[in-house]
Amino acid sequence: LKVELRTDVLTNNNLSADFNRDLFTKTNTLVVNLMSSPGAGKTTTLCETIRRLSSEFKIAVIEGDLATSQDADRIRETGAQAVQINTHGGCHLDARMIASVLPEFDFSEVDILFIENVGNLVCPSGYDLGQTHKVAVLSVPEGNDKIPKYPTMFMRTELVLLNKIDILPFVDFDIEMAKKDLEALNANSSIISLSARSGEGFDTWIQWIKDAYNACQKQ
Amino acid sequence: LKVELRTDVLTNNNLSADFNRDLFTKTNTLVVNLMSSPGAGKTTTLCETIRRLSSEFKIAVIEGDLATSQDADRIRETGAQAVQINTHGGCHLDARMIASVLPEFDFSEVDILFIENVGNLVCPSGYDLGQTHKVAVLSVPEGNDKIPKYPTMFMRTELVLLNKIDILPFVDFDIEMAKKDLEALNANSSIISLSARSGEGFDTWIQWIKDAYNACQKQ
Repeated sequence: LKVELRTDVLTNNNLSADFNRDLFTKTNTLVVNLMSSPGAGKTTTLCETIRRLSSEFKIAVIEGDLATSQDADRIRETGAQAVQINTHGGCHLDARMIASVLPEFDFSEVDILFIENVGNLVCPSGYDLGQTHKVAVLSVPEGNDKIPKYPTMFMRTELVLLNKIDILPFVDFDIEMAKKDLEALNANSSIISLSARSGEGFDTWIQWIKDAYNACQKQ
Repeated sequence: LKVELRTDVLTNNNLSADFNRDLFTKTNTLVVNLMSSPGAGKTTTLCETIRRLSSEFKIAVIEGDLATSQDADRIRETGAQAVQINTHGGCHLDARMIASVLPEFDFSEVDILFIENVGNLVCPSGYDLGQTHKVAVLSVPEGNDKIPKYPTMFMRTELVLLNKIDILPFVDFDIEMAKKDLEALNANSSIISLSARSGEGFDTWIQWIKDAYNACQKQ
């Protein structure tokens, strides 16, 4: 029964994900689903990312949280359009939640949509939202053991933003070991080290987004 | 249907939790369920806690993780008995998982059992394991917004260990604001600031455990 129900839940999710993906493809919108532990720095990274892209791209954001609209408020301060989804205790966004807020955007006026998932290194990884790319954020104070200990997340993402490297001297984190652990788990993923606070590493991340945007434009 | 199923899952969980609680009560065992985000420092805190208590108390640990036995290995280095539960993708421990490993311990030889839950600030809070106390660990690099943004966790715990205060000067975290946010959400909870790395604040936490242990001994 447990297996059947999970299959059913995921089948329904995948139907909504396909609906979302179809809209994103038709409108040439790059959609990035950002996932991480609570406090890894998704919102701060997103704010800095928007500041660096906003002269060139029209950006929209969907914020997922159990409660509060604090993150959407922070995003709006950058000038980007933001819609907050509150899951009221739910541990992840699903494709139907995304579908339900899509009418709030005019996708002819959106180049890039960032979806900031609920802070959780487990549950969000299992739910396709129809995104173009899944990106994990990991922060150095979380420690080196997170990649092997949370394999479902790092197996299902295409890029790891290793954040808060400005405090690397004050915590125990070995970037080379993280690269080896990730390589062993998922050879198709890679790490970009950065700091949303100091701006270090952002040139590489911004270029990654621009390449991804170009790749999803109609020929 | 969704509500009924959730009720059923939690009813089953509560039956197992009552079974566990009954055993813990009969054997005068203090049981602490430790919960946090990934990387907040539960295991490091636990290792230092065991070192400070082991001359006086017999300590056992149940470690919950999606994968690996890294945490149980770290605990065993302190001399404490540790059993690892791997949830294979599951986002929290439940009472039945705990019940299934209890036969591995001789509770006439255990004073304090620590249960380290899966790193997740959402899901573990909903599952009673039969513990005496629920304690949340929050680390200062996670930022000030976590208490209002993850209310289910902080409403259901009796104590917050505010960890990694050795790196407080290098991150943005306001302890007074955290105390106010917690007070507004849950007047029965409180904060102990500490650093598992420097040992700062541990005297208060160790005294909290000793008081909790004394309170659960038969008169």
